[in-house]
Amino acid sequence: MNRQSLVEQIKKKKSYLCVGLDTDPDKIPAHLKQRPDAVLAFNKAIIDATLDACVSYKINTAFYEAMGPRGWEIMEETVHYIPSTHLKIADAKRGDIGNTSSQYAKAFFEALPFDAITVAPYMGADSVQPFLEYDNKWTIVLGLTSNKGAADFELQKMGEEYLYEKVMKTVASWGNPGNLMFVVGATQAEAFSAIRSWLPDHFFLVPGVGAQGGSLREISEKALNKDAGLLVNASRAIIYASEKEDFAEEARIIASQYQAEMSNYLQ
Amino acid sequence: MNRQSLVEQIKKKKSYLCVGLDTDPDKIPAHLKQRPDAVLAFNKAIIDATLDACVSYKINTAFYEAMGPRGWEIMEETVHYIPSTHLKIADAKRGDIGNTSSQYAKAFFEALPFDAITVAPYMGADSVQPFLEYDNKWTIVLGLTSNKGAADFELQKMGEEYLYEKVMKTVASWGNPGNLMFVVGATQAEAFSAIRSWLPDHFFLVPGVGAQGGSLREISEKALNKDAGLLVNASRAIIYASEKEDFAEEARIIASQYQAEMSNYLQ
Repeated sequence: MNRQSLVEQIKKKKSYLCVGLDTDPDKIPAHLKQRPDAVLAFNKAIIDATLDACVSYKINTAFYEAMGPRGWEIMEETVHYIPSTHLKIADAKRGDIGNTSSQYAKAFFEALPFDAITVAPYMGADSVQPFLEYDNKWTIVLGLTSNKGAADFELQKMGEEYLYEKVMKTVASWGNPGNLMFVVGATQAEAFSAIRSWLPDHFFLVPGVGAQGGSLREISEKALNKDAGLLVNASRAIIYASEKEDFAEEARIIASQYQAEMSNYLQ
Repeated sequence: MNRQSLVEQIKKKKSYLCVGLDTDPDKIPAHLKQRPDAVLAFNKAIIDATLDACVSYKINTAFYEAMGPRGWEIMEETVHYIPSTHLKIADAKRGDIGNTSSQYAKAFFEALPFDAITVAPYMGADSVQPFLEYDNKWTIVLGLTSNKGAADFELQKMGEEYLYEKVMKTVASWGNPGNLMFVVGATQAEAFSAIRSWLPDHFFLVPGVGAQGGSLREISEKALNKDAGLLVNASRAIIYASEKEDFAEEARIIASQYQAEMSNYLQ
């Protein structure tokens, strides 16, 4: 999916919501657990319920890998189920030497039909570039993450800049706002204005709203640009909105609340 | 596998060789390619041929993920085939917020029987700690990698130190030499003496010998300690030693050459 199509979807839906499918088999409703295809059935119900409120789905690969080989199949079946109107993100945090990153790109952009993948920047340019070589695909590089551990390295100074700042500015030169996004955690709201000032055009994938406590209002006020330029992810707050048979309906309600709030900020 | 067992194997085999199973379906010998289980048959033949010369196998997850869901099964069947005398490393470069890293740890240490996993440090302590919580398992954190891109961030100064130095010293405080190793690329030989001086006891997983050009002699002279303290990986130089039917025999010859050279350095 290219940038034009993504921006069209955002304007049409009045939403920049991404729904995170961090599906833990232990947390799905009891009435589904007995089914052999419980996780897939859960994902399909969540997708059906939230399609109108969001523009993207983010599949957290860890939760599928933890299920063993069948988990990789469920991930494949889930990503195939997401319609082409929605940006399909593999939240995989990959990155390795060039010939290995090429294999990861093949895994997520060819063997699986993802539109985007999250990538860790530590190993530098040749670990990121193989992902950028694909047309109409997105590489989403970690900038400033939402977790407490961001303080250990990302928020340490490298010369006059924070490491995350050095990383984002350097990585920005390897791609362009049509094939490169950055992860910026919603819990880092005080940094959003500065980040938007150096990167006026890029999309930021923003986790950390909901269970992690970030403020949708604050990050929207600081970082929306003319194309929105944000994809705000909520996972647990939506997919585990209810533990009962009404889980999909409750997920729809929470996703619609995010969409309604976003619609206001987009005006 | 705990440290005592690993060191016993190194002393018994007179080897600190790790064989990297970066198996690319396009590069396996023609006579195997027709078989439906070609990659698994290739891996088993390489393992049978190199068992006596090495103490560890490293499975590069990217190559298996690139095959789709069947690749994850082949990875599982391969790791089950490796005997318990050998340290089984998932070269996966994972790392995410705490609840996600816990899922990755579950994927590689419970759903799959790996002894060790490589982890990227960018996101800080809570992205690494879930892996360290497992007894008799190893977390192998990226320090100074073998690729050209190491210059982009790892070799930039953070205060008085290089980033990789800050990372290795900080991460060392999160674990101990019995559950934590570091990746240090063989192409970074000039840095090995200094790294060994700050971390006298830790094992280093050293890729980059062979196809990437690092010198086994130089890194061994600079960084062997009383328990060896090194696991030197070769992948392409061993597994693709021949493209013909004799591939396993040629792999055995190359692996034995590394073992013989290591045996000299261990004295």
